[in-house]
Amino acid sequence: MNFDEAGVIAALARIFGTSQRGVEIGIGDDAAVVKTSARSAITTDIAVEGTHFNTQWSSAFDIGRKITAANLADIYAMGGSPKYLVAAVTLTGQESMEWIEDLAEGMAHEASSCGVYIVGGDLAKGPCKVISVAAIGQIDTVITRSGAQVGDSIYISSLPGWSAAGLAIIDKDLESDIAHYAISEFCAPTVDYSAAVQFANGKATSLCDVSDALVIQAEQIAAASKVQLSIEKDLLSKHPEFATLSEIADSQGIDVWQWILAGGEDHVFLATGKDLTGFRIGSVQSGTGVIGVEMKKAPDIWRHFN
Amino acid sequence: MNFDEAGVIAALARIFGTSQRGVEIGIGDDAAVVKTSARSAITTDIAVEGTHFNTQWSSAFDIGRKITAANLADIYAMGGSPKYLVAAVTLTGQESMEWIEDLAEGMAHEASSCGVYIVGGDLAKGPCKVISVAAIGQIDTVITRSGAQVGDSIYISSLPGWSAAGLAIIDKDLESDIAHYAISEFCAPTVDYSAAVQFANGKATSLCDVSDALVIQAEQIAAASKVQLSIEKDLLSKHPEFATLSEIADSQGIDVWQWILAGGEDHVFLATGKDLTGFRIGSVQSGTGVIGVEMKKAPDIWRHFN
Repeated sequence: MNFDEAGVIAALARIFGTSQRGVEIGIGDDAAVVKTSARSAITTDIAVEGTHFNTQWSSAFDIGRKITAANLADIYAMGGSPKYLVAAVTLTGQESMEWIEDLAEGMAHEASSCGVYIVGGDLAKGPCKVISVAAIGQIDTVITRSGAQVGDSIYISSLPGWSAAGLAIIDKDLESDIAHYAISEFCAPTVDYSAAVQFANGKATSLCDVSDALVIQAEQIAAASKVQLSIEKDLLSKHPEFATLSEIADSQGIDVWQWILAGGEDHVFLATGKDLTGFRIGSVQSGTGVIGVEMKKAPDIWRHFN
Repeated sequence: MNFDEAGVIAALARIFGTSQRGVEIGIGDDAAVVKTSARSAITTDIAVEGTHFNTQWSSAFDIGRKITAANLADIYAMGGSPKYLVAAVTLTGQESMEWIEDLAEGMAHEASSCGVYIVGGDLAKGPCKVISVAAIGQIDTVITRSGAQVGDSIYISSLPGWSAAGLAIIDKDLESDIAHYAISEFCAPTVDYSAAVQFANGKATSLCDVSDALVIQAEQIAAASKVQLSIEKDLLSKHPEFATLSEIADSQGIDVWQWILAGGEDHVFLATGKDLTGFRIGSVQSGTGVIGVEMKKAPDIWRHFN
């Protein structure tokens, strides 16, 4: 064991320090006690070493940011505001104290960017590193996937595909700024949480977080709303970042649409509605499923069952 | 892969079916949406294959019950009532559909015994099975570990040590009813949640869940309350189950006190207060630490950092 377990708990209590507004009891008892509103949104996401992250590629700080971002994005994607997190972590015992502190710092950094506190957790020994986070948030008006209306437009908060691009080139030793940007988006995406708030404020009829793939989340909205989503590649290809992403894809002999449509984990927000602030990519019409984005290869993912 | 991932999600949605009071949005969107009160208790616990459970010994149903019980007990141990759970699970892909359904049934069974619903989750592929659960509950009067008063008595809800006994004899092929009981308590303890409610209703001054070991949780109460806990082995040895537990310990050449004081995972509730309904094991006095229960061997655990 490379660290002292009591030392880890003390470090986590310091890093997650919860003498904060709304937190009555933070780390140190059987459960945390927090102020909540009449209606809460709750979610959980798990990240596994080798599946979702790799310590060769990602710093502990980025790993902590990424799993935290996935949870925060899920709450925003319902139209809510995340408030508190709990984290359950398995470690092998071979991690350094510094690595563990960096992981916690990354989680706290991402959480605090949304005014969210980590109020408790659990630590266990296991054969590999697993980080599971659960988030709870306040929610007034709920925006599900089932409200898309015929005649709505479809919007994204930013162009998906950067995380998939980063994964594709992470071991390629590319030296450009754009390559570094893609890799950093894979290691820990920059999530525009405020875009979800804007979608909600603009009375989006449906909203979700693209955690798996744009086509998958679009299909979920279509199915839940009993409508057809017509996504236009022409519109997507006018996104200001499209040319840059295409350039990396071309240099790797990869079809950029695979990254945009089937890549996940950017936590781009996908919304339907009228005159929303966001990038318009298509329209909602009567029918079923998603059209305009036929894929050569289906995305291969394990789905969030929230 | 022994199962179809979409099939798993469908099975979980069926087993966890949340068209229940208080659950506005259950499984199927980015996050669940539930009714909450002004103050909530939140906790998380993680169980890892090989560390906390073993599929050779435990059925999937029991594994599901056990991790769920740990979370429910933590909420009760604050004086709260658990309401909702989310579960994040990693699977290797080698599990049968039946095993996964049994796991979910075990979780749902334990949760429903407390009127609690599983409202969402996440599923991922990993090198071993890991089950992480987070619980949220309603809480009015908070009972921490820091309220024990000089002059209080110390109570337990039942005799700890059965889970430790079960672990010690699980591979011994003992055929007695008592041996089977101990093993079943190790695989999934029978938690008397109502005892925690009785402690809370009796105005317990401190309350916690013995997840690690009786001496560890007693030390935590002593430290948080700035008092000394005097636990009397004489009182503990008068517990109606003491003789039976001693008999198994003797038959294995094990000191029964090791199981009672240092065994964990029974989720016995430990409380201080006056005239509580429970089994009295000692008194609170001025001083520090825990006396009366010196151990030959310290418990070796990784601590919950809630």
